Amino acid sequence: MSEIRFVEVSPRDGFQNWPDPVSTDVKEQLVKGLFEAGMETVEATSFVSPGWVPQMADAEELLARLGPELRAVVRVLVPNSRGLGRAITAGARQIVVVSSATEEFNRRNLNRSIDETVADIVEICDRAKEAGVRVDGSISVAWGCPFEGPVRPERALHVARRLLAAGCTKVSIADTIGVADPGAVMSLAGQAVAEFGPERVAMHFHDTRGLGAANVLAAYEVGVREFEGSLAGIGGCPFAPNATGNVCSEDILHMLELMGHHSGADTAKLITLARWLAGALGQALPGRLYKAGLEPWVAA
Amino acid sequence: MSEIRFVEVSPRDGFQNWPDPVSTDVKEQLVKGLFEAGMETVEATSFVSPGWVPQMADAEELLARLGPELRAVVRVLVPNSRGLGRAITAGARQIVVVSSATEEFNRRNLNRSIDETVADIVEICDRAKEAGVRVDGSISVAWGCPFEGPVRPERALHVARRLLAAGCTKVSIADTIGVADPGAVMSLAGQAVAEFGPERVAMHFHDTRGLGAANVLAAYEVGVREFEGSLAGIGGCPFAPNATGNVCSEDILHMLELMGHHSGADTAKLITLARWLAGALGQALPGRLYKAGLEPWVAA
Repeated sequence: MSEIRFVEVSPRDGFQNWPDPVSTDVKEQLVKGLFEAGMETVEATSFVSPGWVPQMADAEELLARLGPELRAVVRVLVPNSRGLGRAITAGARQIVVVSSATEEFNRRNLNRSIDETVADIVEICDRAKEAGVRVDGSISVAWGCPFEGPVRPERALHVARRLLAAGCTKVSIADTIGVADPGAVMSLAGQAVAEFGPERVAMHFHDTRGLGAANVLAAYEVGVREFEGSLAGIGGCPFAPNATGNVCSEDILHMLELMGHHSGADTAKLITLARWLAGALGQALPGRLYKAGLEPWVAA
Repeated sequence: MSEIRFVEVSPRDGFQNWPDPVSTDVKEQLVKGLFEAGMETVEATSFVSPGWVPQMADAEELLARLGPELRAVVRVLVPNSRGLGRAITAGARQIVVVSSATEEFNRRNLNRSIDETVADIVEICDRAKEAGVRVDGSISVAWGCPFEGPVRPERALHVARRLLAAGCTKVSIADTIGVADPGAVMSLAGQAVAEFGPERVAMHFHDTRGLGAANVLAAYEVGVREFEGSLAGIGGCPFAPNATGNVCSEDILHMLELMGHHSGADTAKLITLARWLAGALGQALPGRLYKAGLEPWVAA
């Protein structure tokens, strides 16, 4: 078994705010390519309202194209109980639900309070359990919020407890706007691992201010063993248009691999896929490794 | 006194392989802007043969323009004893000399053996001492070499001992081609700090494969207190054309600052200067922070 668990979120977090339309063909190739490169979990799409996020309007079609085997292993984002019905009908077996760590971000992003969100998540977990669907939890703006400022660890931990109590298998703690630093990561991640155990904690970083890989290292050092990222570092936040995207999957998996911590993913295949993605999207993407290639003595 | 010492190398390492000509005006504004932003040391240029590195052909003119006060605090690269004469005549008071950790890189980069390089550095240190000029040492390809592959810590440490014995004030250990990972950094940096003391050790990372900030964090954790970087992450290596440049100064200084470790530089001023530099060079540069800006609650 691999020491590092990894959730690849590029088809969802990477594309949801992409300025140009992304075809279902590209999404299908990406998801299939990620599994072929050895990714354990791929967050393939979001069953959000198509009016709200047009880029995810092809969620049903994408899942249909993936076929039964891949449908059983992809994870999809479900923002509310309406989305759950669509996800189950489409054949999803793993979903992720979201609450923010702050009221104001939750209101702007999900249009309701944290209490209302958690109540909805309780209902989603109950229905999902009946349907045999696994539910992961995710906590947005866990280190800082564009509206409320810096966020104390206890606020994110409090929401994490509620999501786990609702029936979520684990919680992914997200630095949605890329304001965490390694010290703040060690504090919150260390407390989360100590309270919930490493098997129930994941970290989701954005490289907005260049600290993504350093934050992964800091989280690893305090016991985190599950990370999320996106191929070639695509993605971003709707409230921060200049921000670069998620931490780059192949860059951080390569770092962990060099340190002897394996995820099961094949870095060379991820580099090839990232190069294909940059071509398909018609532009240079934020990731570093796919541009530089592996070390000269490996690549030769 | 600041906890973190920092050497800004963009005018030298950032420009030496820049594909388009960079005017002396831009270099002058950059060096002056870096000091105005609170940088302690700026590596302003290189007294290398203009035929070898045309981008540095204006070294004398740049130093003349800086005036006596800034000339006394800039550092300049001196590749050999010929360069030393030019540097002293131009009024430089701090120089940096270079040896590689591997024979083959030294041969290709400096056209001679490590023994010959060290002998020259001994002579340079003697002449510099007479002239009241401080000499720092730098070690290229300390973690890996494009020709010889991975480099064991002992090889870099061996060269470091020889440079310090020759009279260098300190040694900067450089990951020239961006192949170090945090584990390898902790190993070599930890040994260097233990043997030479933190006041005689600096780290020079490249972000070629996205690990620059993580490597800075790892080095900090084992006691390193001096780093080198370039504004907006410009720079690169002549042998790795696809590689991104040096670790981005404002990104890593911001990281260390968030962790409570100060350098004396003003991050907001560095961001403004990085934005000016991107405009002056007419393209987006690798740094993240200058694009995203400071945290919303700071920037507001």
